[in-house]
Amino acid sequence: MIAMFLGLIRPLATSKTLTYVAGLALLVGAYSLLPIWLEYSVFHDVNDTPSQFHGVLSLVLGLLLVFRTNTAYSRWWEARILWGSLVNACRNLGLKLTSIDGLSPESATRAMDLIVAFPVALRCHLRSDCDDETRDRLQSLVGKPNHIPQAIAAELYAMVWDAKRSGRIDGDELRVLDSELLRLMDICGGCERILKTRIVKSYRIFARQCVGIFLGSLPWALVHDFKIWTLPFTIITAYFMLGLETVAEHVETPFGYDEDDLDLESLCGTIDATVRETFDRHALAT
Amino acid sequence: MIAMFLGLIRPLATSKTLTYVAGLALLVGAYSLLPIWLEYSVFHDVNDTPSQFHGVLSLVLGLLLVFRTNTAYSRWWEARILWGSLVNACRNLGLKLTSIDGLSPESATRAMDLIVAFPVALRCHLRSDCDDETRDRLQSLVGKPNHIPQAIAAELYAMVWDAKRSGRIDGDELRVLDSELLRLMDICGGCERILKTRIVKSYRIFARQCVGIFLGSLPWALVHDFKIWTLPFTIITAYFMLGLETVAEHVETPFGYDEDDLDLESLCGTIDATVRETFDRHALAT
Amino acid sequence: MIAMFLGLIRPLATSKTLTYVAGLALLVGAYSLLPIWLEYSVFHDVNDTPSQFHGVLSLVLGLLLVFRTNTAYSRWWEARILWGSLVNACRNLGLKLTSIDGLSPESATRAMDLIVAFPVALRCHLRSDCDDETRDRLQSLVGKPNHIPQAIAAELYAMVWDAKRSGRIDGDELRVLDSELLRLMDICGGCERILKTRIVKSYRIFARQCVGIFLGSLPWALVHDFKIWTLPFTIITAYFMLGLETVAEHVETPFGYDEDDLDLESLCGTIDATVRETFDRHALAT
Amino acid sequence: MIAMFLGLIRPLATSKTLTYVAGLALLVGAYSLLPIWLEYSVFHDVNDTPSQFHGVLSLVLGLLLVFRTNTAYSRWWEARILWGSLVNACRNLGLKLTSIDGLSPESATRAMDLIVAFPVALRCHLRSDCDDETRDRLQSLVGKPNHIPQAIAAELYAMVWDAKRSGRIDGDELRVLDSELLRLMDICGGCERILKTRIVKSYRIFARQCVGIFLGSLPWALVHDFKIWTLPFTIITAYFMLGLETVAEHVETPFGYDEDDLDLESLCGTIDATVRETFDRHALAT
Amino acid sequence: MIAMFLGLIRPLATSKTLTYVAGLALLVGAYSLLPIWLEYSVFHDVNDTPSQFHGVLSLVLGLLLVFRTNTAYSRWWEARILWGSLVNACRNLGLKLTSIDGLSPESATRAMDLIVAFPVALRCHLRSDCDDETRDRLQSLVGKPNHIPQAIAAELYAMVWDAKRSGRIDGDELRVLDSELLRLMDICGGCERILKTRIVKSYRIFARQCVGIFLGSLPWALVHDFKIWTLPFTIITAYFMLGLETVAEHVETPFGYDEDDLDLESLCGTIDATVRETFDRHALAT
Repeated sequence: MIAMFLGLIRPLATSKTLTYVAGLALLVGAYSLLPIWLEYSVFHDVNDTPSQFHGVLSLVLGLLLVFRTNTAYSRWWEARILWGSLVNACRNLGLKLTSIDGLSPESATRAMDLIVAFPVALRCHLRSDCDDETRDRLQSLVGKPNHIPQAIAAELYAMVWDAKRSGRIDGDELRVLDSELLRLMDICGGCERILKTRIVKSYRIFARQCVGIFLGSLPWALVHDFKIWTLPFTIITAYFMLGLETVAEHVETPFGYDEDDLDLESLCGTIDATVRETFDRHALAT
Repeated sequence: MIAMFLGLIRPLATSKTLTYVAGLALLVGAYSLLPIWLEYSVFHDVNDTPSQFHGVLSLVLGLLLVFRTNTAYSRWWEARILWGSLVNACRNLGLKLTSIDGLSPESATRAMDLIVAFPVALRCHLRSDCDDETRDRLQSLVGKPNHIPQAIAAELYAMVWDAKRSGRIDGDELRVLDSELLRLMDICGGCERILKTRIVKSYRIFARQCVGIFLGSLPWALVHDFKIWTLPFTIITAYFMLGLETVAEHVETPFGYDEDDLDLESLCGTIDATVRETFDRHALAT
Repeated sequence: MIAMFLGLIRPLATSKTLTYVAGLALLVGAYSLLPIWLEYSVFHDVNDTPSQFHGVLSLVLGLLLVFRTNTAYSRWWEARILWGSLVNACRNLGLKLTSIDGLSPESATRAMDLIVAFPVALRCHLRSDCDDETRDRLQSLVGKPNHIPQAIAAELYAMVWDAKRSGRIDGDELRVLDSELLRLMDICGGCERILKTRIVKSYRIFARQCVGIFLGSLPWALVHDFKIWTLPFTIITAYFMLGLETVAEHVETPFGYDEDDLDLESLCGTIDATVRETFDRHALAT
Repeated sequence: MIAMFLGLIRPLATSKTLTYVAGLALLVGAYSLLPIWLEYSVFHDVNDTPSQFHGVLSLVLGLLLVFRTNTAYSRWWEARILWGSLVNACRNLGLKLTSIDGLSPESATRAMDLIVAFPVALRCHLRSDCDDETRDRLQSLVGKPNHIPQAIAAELYAMVWDAKRSGRIDGDELRVLDSELLRLMDICGGCERILKTRIVKSYRIFARQCVGIFLGSLPWALVHDFKIWTLPFTIITAYFMLGLETVAEHVETPFGYDEDDLDLESLCGTIDATVRETFDRHALAT
Repeated sequence: MIAMFLGLIRPLATSKTLTYVAGLALLVGAYSLLPIWLEYSVFHDVNDTPSQFHGVLSLVLGLLLVFRTNTAYSRWWEARILWGSLVNACRNLGLKLTSIDGLSPESATRAMDLIVAFPVALRCHLRSDCDDETRDRLQSLVGKPNHIPQAIAAELYAMVWDAKRSGRIDGDELRVLDSELLRLMDICGGCERILKTRIVKSYRIFARQCVGIFLGSLPWALVHDFKIWTLPFTIITAYFMLGLETVAEHVETPFGYDEDDLDLESLCGTIDATVRETFDRHALAT
């Protein structure tokens, strides 16, 4: 029972997002001391906010929070699916390139380097942020184009069609490889779509305004009936509403560094490891 | 705290849509002065609207607003996905056309011009509105057909199948290009579907009528309990309900010039830039 | 303000569906005069329906109306998407058949006639209703089969595979055409599925029964508190509930002649126009 | 008005499911006579169940009923879509096999027999139930394998690949046929998935328990306020809740013999008719 | 009636999950004895928690429970669909490999062994848990790679492309087989995605905290009105809320050993049986 209780409290300290939200909720709690003080003072008749004030607002607020949570989460999950397909596409490219006999060891190595560089380049591209070591590694592969993932895909395309023209692979093999190469750029485009287009701005403003008005008026309406209980109740309500709003903001843009964002580093690592295993296994076999 | 507060208020001034909605809400507020004045006058017995008047209406209104918001948003997001696929299709066409060796420099340039013209033509087609410069540019490419995007696609098809017939590309390369060309017209058809078929008309009328009846009767039912608080409460409720309704109208038709509509100009720009980069990179390499 | 108000009222006169629904709502209103008369008569103790009568019923009714509206609308939208794909498939077939050089002018004309006849035939097939002129035109193309759209598709298939066998098109071109021909019959099958299978019958009965019981008992429960206000409130509630139910019935079967049904005539016209433009353009060019 | 009223009542007699549900609801009504009798007896102080007893339970019950209804219905509709694709796949196979010239009249007849046998075999397979005549017909085609639909698909595969090896069809034609044959087994697998995996068992138990507790406690909590009205109200509530639960159970397993289940016989009939029409038409033409 | 009643109670004993949840609910019930005792003691004025305490919390809790249940279930169902596709892919691979004549009996046997080993290897991979016998069997097939399913797919790829290079199958047959092999690794990637990425952590914490606060405060708020009825009501509410939460946790990770998890053993068995039947049937025929 106590372990469970601690399990509910601990995230407030360990999770940066939740600590921040809890802080905001305490601020709202501090603000609610004003109507509470008024209620217990001689001016307690000044506040005559009707206690049903939140009835209809709840309807709108519920609608907006549900909408916000669902759309934010489905964007996050779509981003995750895109990166999952990237894992698949890279692995399949690895399996196919090692199965085709038309590649020399050098070009096989280069192909592998390009494949494992693609997710890394996409990660940097989506974050507009790249550490120096990674940038050097990418530049040594494809130079300094504006759109590095596209340049890597172009290199892979060039390599495959070149093999086709020189007769090392035939039309069917080309097609089988093409279907995977296509996915790379489709995934890149899908991620860019999620990155660049957030949900309709007016809805986001409505959600925030509605939470604001709701929390701003809540203690004034509650205080007649709730007395001192207004304080914990306001803090708890503020914690969940601001929490849902804040987490939706984070989850909506899933490529950042927040703790709820996708763990792109580990996904890049997974791709790197499994693709290299395929090529190593193939090198041993030949 | 104050910065946050300002963040909630500022959109009322900066966003044209929200300024309009706030204006409407103030009108509803002015209207609510009538029952308030009655309440404080000697005729305060005239208004005997029961205060539970909105119970069942809330159920229907909630249903209609949720339905309206979700369908409008999913149309908007589908339109965004279609334009995202357009980015992908144009990029992939660029990558593939530059990888194929069967195109002469002149036809490569023409292909590039046609590809980057397609999104521009689609934008004009969806808006039934085209500035003179763009129209001249499109007409110099494909003449004066009724359906310009289709004419551009037809030109690209003709170019590809011509290359096939003259043996510059083989059947497999044809297929690989065909799968991208197909997407162009599928995307065009998808956008036309969203443009021409709005959501079921009766539902849109119901939603508007329900909001109208709700707001028209709200102050009369509230005024006994809420007294002067009826005024702010009516304004706030009107702001959110009219806001959800108005934004849904805008979002439902995502190809216009509203601030919540898709930013087609910037999408066309992105396509232009990345496709040209691919062709330039290829021209340098050869 | 007045223009807006008229905008809310006018559909009651202009829309056949809404006029019908408003008529039904007035009937329910007339019925509600019975409990109202009782209330004001000496027998006002006879009616002792508890006023919370609708609490739990609202829960079930809300569930059923949301379910009904969403499933009906998603069927309607799926039908619209199918017809949108039909536009795409016909256009793409046009573009591809004109790009292929293996067709003689006569067979090109016949192919065009078959393509533009397909949507018309499908429309008649879905409505089990065909004007004489259209029937004659279709019979002159494919005779008198039971399933006219299938016969048209069979003709197109035969034409394409015949061109393949006689060597006028090769295997790759066959495949590219086949993928579009396939869509024709898949779309036909999809429309037939929506036409023949309505949503689970028991749910439709539940929805209607629940609305019936709700409206039948509503005035009896309200009249103690609402007095004469029971009349407008019952009419308004009946208008929206019967409206949602009626529109769902119409929207669920989207191929009919209701004003909320799909505008199949105009879709057939669009296909006709764009396909003919493609063939004309091609005829000019050659 | 009276016709409408009868329309609401009649299903209670004509629909086996609804008769059963109405019977259950009457049983719950009989049970509610106990608290009603208590209320009117001298022991009316014994029952002191608080009347707000169902507040929070409603929340959970609403959630569970919505979840149950939506998942059950989407399984049913997915099953319908799978059978719709089966119609398409069989028709397309028919159209393609008759267009290919490589089949002798005998093998064409056999192919047709196999195609129209597939849906019948799948129906028996899904119901684990087959009348003698059908079983004999299937066994005369493919012998006595455990998995008859798979055996039919294997026969069709063998036939097609055999035609390929003997040069009667080429690689492209193989591919075009393969894409349809593939769908047959994918559809079979999809139906098996729906058949064998019902929704998470714990959720189904929760739903039933929640309905049970709700209905079991409802009359006790209502009787103070509702008096004799407890009886009709309990029956109506029980009717809808048990109805939603019962129909969800039926709809969740859409391949049975319930009146809300899919009409597999008629679907098999449709496939039989249209496929035979295609082959007959072809036989006439040649 | 009694049978039904027992049907509602029995799962509490037979289902491990529900026994656990019922235990937790009894603990919460024990905790609620504290406010009940206070209420009946002389200190009954100490507890003045307002009874509307749960109004707004219900809104948030409803939102979170619906969200949690829906996302957890849709993950579970997606996992089931992936395994359903695995059944299809393995069956189709079996049908195609036996139809192709290019495989020697030995390589056919090896192919069959690899196909039926794939689901088993995937099961072990997803559970990070493998009994010794299975591990030995897998190692005898593909050695000791880190990622066994990928190694099996690589073997199958190598076998197919090897047959292509040596001319035993042609390009079209390669493509037909490749489309199924691709699915194997796509399914593996999809399962890994579900396994490794649970739903956004902050939402899971919110849901648990909200349930905790709700249940912790419920008896204090109820006890004034509910008296001793607080005990059963708290237990029932706790049972459903903790139940939904616990089952969502189980369902969200569908590859484990919980009773609501997918029955991977039986799915592997199905694949094994049908694939072997295909190969046996083929061996008999040749």
